[in-house]
Amino acid sequence: MTVPEHSNFPITVDTIEIAAAYLKSVGVRTPLLESPYLNKIAHRRVLIKAEMLQRTGSFKFRGAWVAISALDENIRKRGVIAYSSGNHAQGIAHAATLHGIPSTIVMPDDSPALKLANTRELGATVVTYDRQGGESREAVGEALAEEQNLTLIRPYDEPMVIAGQGTCGLELAEQAKELGVHDGDVLVCCGGGGLSAGIAIALEAHAPGMRVRPVEPAAANDTCRSLMAGERLSNTANPDTFCDAIVTPMPGTLTFPVLQQLAGPGITVTDRQVLAAMKLALMRLKLVVEPGGAVALAAALEPGNVTGDAVICVLTGGNVDETWLAAAISESAG
Amino acid sequence: MTVPEHSNFPITVDTIEIAAAYLKSVGVRTPLLESPYLNKIAHRRVLIKAEMLQRTGSFKFRGAWVAISALDENIRKRGVIAYSSGNHAQGIAHAATLHGIPSTIVMPDDSPALKLANTRELGATVVTYDRQGGESREAVGEALAEEQNLTLIRPYDEPMVIAGQGTCGLELAEQAKELGVHDGDVLVCCGGGGLSAGIAIALEAHAPGMRVRPVEPAAANDTCRSLMAGERLSNTANPDTFCDAIVTPMPGTLTFPVLQQLAGPGITVTDRQVLAAMKLALMRLKLVVEPGGAVALAAALEPGNVTGDAVICVLTGGNVDETWLAAAISESAG
Repeated sequence: MTVPEHSNFPITVDTIEIAAAYLKSVGVRTPLLESPYLNKIAHRRVLIKAEMLQRTGSFKFRGAWVAISALDENIRKRGVIAYSSGNHAQGIAHAATLHGIPSTIVMPDDSPALKLANTRELGATVVTYDRQGGESREAVGEALAEEQNLTLIRPYDEPMVIAGQGTCGLELAEQAKELGVHDGDVLVCCGGGGLSAGIAIALEAHAPGMRVRPVEPAAANDTCRSLMAGERLSNTANPDTFCDAIVTPMPGTLTFPVLQQLAGPGITVTDRQVLAAMKLALMRLKLVVEPGGAVALAAALEPGNVTGDAVICVLTGGNVDETWLAAAISESAG
Repeated sequence: MTVPEHSNFPITVDTIEIAAAYLKSVGVRTPLLESPYLNKIAHRRVLIKAEMLQRTGSFKFRGAWVAISALDENIRKRGVIAYSSGNHAQGIAHAATLHGIPSTIVMPDDSPALKLANTRELGATVVTYDRQGGESREAVGEALAEEQNLTLIRPYDEPMVIAGQGTCGLELAEQAKELGVHDGDVLVCCGGGGLSAGIAIALEAHAPGMRVRPVEPAAANDTCRSLMAGERLSNTANPDTFCDAIVTPMPGTLTFPVLQQLAGPGITVTDRQVLAAMKLALMRLKLVVEPGGAVALAAALEPGNVTGDAVICVLTGGNVDETWLAAAISESAG
């Protein structure tokens, strides 16, 4: 195995192998699934990496567990802190609890009550800040981190988080080969790019015939545009999409160079296509997928986005509220 | 490994090992999942064997694939036939198509259009009979089988089907040990008893600290009552429950002796408890579970049904229509 050196990459595949060892007896090796019905719609094999079955309902647990595991023991035991109201928060809270260390999550005070309750139930101390009143989560968080000697774990611009997410790529490369698939596009729901970058590095080493294609909602297509422009571009301030889990200001500083060198062109989908994909996932795969976690499937089912005999979709999470779940069931697709 | 001989059992664990070899590169090794939220509700670890992720959305593919694989090649190529409007039909249709052989499914002509369409889409020839008019599926099916030299594959009173379902037990024994669980009750949604019997035989050999507990809807509790009475008792003609996938006339002749010797007492649940379990599976496990596939989880969450530090639930299928799925989401549990 000869893997080129990339001096501007935050990690190598060796780091992802170390991350896989950390996760071995703790993470879920999520299955790679297939449905004859979806294959018919897409006119090719559609393999589904079911990351909503990961602990805490999204791939984010991988990076959270690995980043905490890699800390020096004396630093780790003081605790960790994260800013997030979503899947990264739940991943950090649960990983910290499993490690037996405290975690603090900084969340806006207008977060849905269920998200606050879930994060607390996973063992975190939740500190809220007044978002509407202009309070900054960074200021609140940094004061806390310094006062209590906590280690901040960023959601994607963090080398060991990227390595953790990359373990998903190691698994899918191996699982796809078992199913007879050795090349094709790997569609990944993309926010800050930690998962896409980690998978891309894993595939370069273990499945050079496969290529990451980041998928985004049309209204928050910063990575797609940035890849075309060759530089990091921003989203508008309040993108109009219900795929909230993957809306980020712009691609990460650590993740973008990886995607520039290893990923294919990005793909965008509409919210309407996402809702139809959520319905198909429920009825045909028996999986609950959140809007941001379904964009890859939506892209695979739309004609013209990919070529080849097979496509792999990474469905990244399933933390959706009842209202959107009910809306998906009412969709006419199925 | 010393396993007692049971002269009245249809198969031994060796047959299940052969079945596992048949399934190796075709079946899904379904994951054994855990949710901290469900653990809290149950006051113990709850491990979930997610059989709705098996091909065709239920464990039935295991037995179908294995039974067809075990046929002599010259007999197999003439085709197979099954009577079923549900998961067994889909398992047989898909397994036959993957084997490149024809399959005929005998279904009532008043079956839901979606079930008829799905079974056809999986490659089967569907032959309908006039249920309301008193036509017998056995008569229709036997005439066809004789005329076309087809092999009938029964849903549970069929040794190689039981062996196929038993592979689920081999997997869960191994997966539970990886999670540190070596003993406890294994709750299995129970219709004719093919899955329960297969798992019981696998566990006796590979996880003697684990014990199958069949779970049924209170309105169709034939196995529970039969186990207490020591003989096979019938259900009433039209049991009032929405757990249709596991309503059978009475325990099987081949499966019941196995359950008598190896299973613990049965457990019953109400439809209301089942709907709440379906909701929890959606929100906490990210899994779609059909009513009959959710009874084991409903039983695990109800106080007093089991003891010990851990319980394993086999969630058997996810083929539920939109109406019941929407009803589950509207449930107040969560």
